[in-house]
Amino acid sequence: VGKGRLPPEFDLIARYFAPLAAPAPGALGLTDDAALIDVSPGHRLVVTMDALVADVHFLASDPPDLIARKALRVNLSDLAGMGARPIGYFMATAFSDQDEAWLATFAAGLQEDQRQFGLALMGGDTVGTPGPLTLAITAVGEVRAGRELRRSRAKAGDVVLVTGTLGDGALGLRALRNELPALTADHRRSLARRYHLPEPRLAFGRAVAEQGLATCGMDVSDGLFADLGHICETSGMGAEVELARLPLSPAAEAAVRVYPDLRGLIYAGGDDYELLLTAASDRAAALSALAGSLGLRLTEIGRIVVGNSVNILDENGKEIIDIRKGWTHF
Amino acid sequence: VGKGRLPPEFDLIARYFAPLAAPAPGALGLTDDAALIDVSPGHRLVVTMDALVADVHFLASDPPDLIARKALRVNLSDLAGMGARPIGYFMATAFSDQDEAWLATFAAGLQEDQRQFGLALMGGDTVGTPGPLTLAITAVGEVRAGRELRRSRAKAGDVVLVTGTLGDGALGLRALRNELPALTADHRRSLARRYHLPEPRLAFGRAVAEQGLATCGMDVSDGLFADLGHICETSGMGAEVELARLPLSPAAEAAVRVYPDLRGLIYAGGDDYELLLTAASDRAAALSALAGSLGLRLTEIGRIVVGNSVNILDENGKEIIDIRKGWTHF
Repeated sequence: VGKGRLPPEFDLIARYFAPLAAPAPGALGLTDDAALIDVSPGHRLVVTMDALVADVHFLASDPPDLIARKALRVNLSDLAGMGARPIGYFMATAFSDQDEAWLATFAAGLQEDQRQFGLALMGGDTVGTPGPLTLAITAVGEVRAGRELRRSRAKAGDVVLVTGTLGDGALGLRALRNELPALTADHRRSLARRYHLPEPRLAFGRAVAEQGLATCGMDVSDGLFADLGHICETSGMGAEVELARLPLSPAAEAAVRVYPDLRGLIYAGGDDYELLLTAASDRAAALSALAGSLGLRLTEIGRIVVGNSVNILDENGKEIIDIRKGWTHF
Repeated sequence: VGKGRLPPEFDLIARYFAPLAAPAPGALGLTDDAALIDVSPGHRLVVTMDALVADVHFLASDPPDLIARKALRVNLSDLAGMGARPIGYFMATAFSDQDEAWLATFAAGLQEDQRQFGLALMGGDTVGTPGPLTLAITAVGEVRAGRELRRSRAKAGDVVLVTGTLGDGALGLRALRNELPALTADHRRSLARRYHLPEPRLAFGRAVAEQGLATCGMDVSDGLFADLGHICETSGMGAEVELARLPLSPAAEAAVRVYPDLRGLIYAGGDDYELLLTAASDRAAALSALAGSLGLRLTEIGRIVVGNSVNILDENGKEIIDIRKGWTHF
């Protein structure tokens, strides 16, 4: 693999990847053609795949453990968006000029997140590329059949809720690019941290699905409005969102106060990896209690309405942005 | 994605990938975060992942439909090696300078093989890269629990069998590089075809697994001796193979007659995607009959012995190559 700076593929696998597969008997020690996965009775498998290219989806200069963890977490966030429990993941890596020290740190990052989220490497492929470092991860989880969170079931009158805070990831990328010099170092660090290490809302997503509390769920990766647009389009509904209700971290508050032009990143920046839910309004209290029990912020930001647009309302309920049809184009 | 020669990602997905997902309800029209897969009762999931980089694993100038089909087939061959029935696949594509006509042909190739092998696209990711076109495919299948073909169960006295013919893929790559000018055009075409379009032995692998006819099974992708070495190492056994018995196509026969230096490609070239089996000798007749019923050539090429090396014997039973310990290094 690579340009000769890394050991041969079999050594790499034995040294760095097989230990990551040790907790999963179905990975067969990474010695077979494929992995075996047993699905719990009454459950179905949930599978998602994301690809990341250096200097497109992350900075090649980012610490390798953070590159690994973010690559894994964006996939875990997709599982959270379906309400699934993670089982394992498959990883294809195309190495360019990484050396063994880089790889050791990369693997340590995966090990840390495997422990944190309770899954294991189950297979994959390791190749070399003359291009930039490229990663593809396929994450596998399971969900009780029929309980998975979908995008197509929002109903008029449902409340719209979102976990955590919005915009930190997109602002964090700007902080890392030194585009936010007027912020305090603490704020810049905290935003950068959220860019590097999103928090997949697995425990919450899984509990919401198990308890059947939501009509729709998905993770926010393209930006709140785009992703709410996906729910509205798939459900054949519209939505109203109150701008003033969008949950901001102190660092994001400071950023949009100092750089008002960046306000759009809150709802259109992407890289949030929070959970977006719609739910019957009589479930809002139960959802709040559940989030509270997990120490997770959950904010009601609007409602589902009959229509085909996502309307953004100011403090006086006046429509300030009307995102009309054509969800797939923004 | 790409460098602006392709339409936006959502359009690409709607136009070229969603039709490939249509046969799979669990793909949810590629509109959700992840796909849902139901596993048949008493079965387990088999998952494999392979990555391919242009001009490393295929020629960037190869016809796009053949690139697509080979990428899919090398994964299907891994499923065949476990005895699994294919369900679906996930594909991450990093496009470089491909245009829409290229992509249309690429998708048509996938469509053709989906029909042939009975599976559907279930998800994935589409990104751009400044590097070479890069593909990662994760294929998913199922196998009756406990019936999967493994590498660890070869016993002394087992016969070693291989489907089809060996060396064609590796020789085909040489033919495509114009390194076999002394062959007839027909022979060169036939070898090139085998390089571009391997035949995953899915029906045979699945029947062998269902009927419990083999002790071990895997697909030959690294070359016969390397892969038999994997079986021997994992099983704690050795093997003897008779060189004269290795099954060759007429084109490969001609190639090694005219270019005797290329003989090693037959057993060490890789890119064969045939099925390698070990079986109790009293199962050989049943395996032969099964292969015959599928119109598939199956050749007994040697036997499993106590030991830790793969020995290659000439026509007189004299040992001509002794591949000793250290399987993972060749």
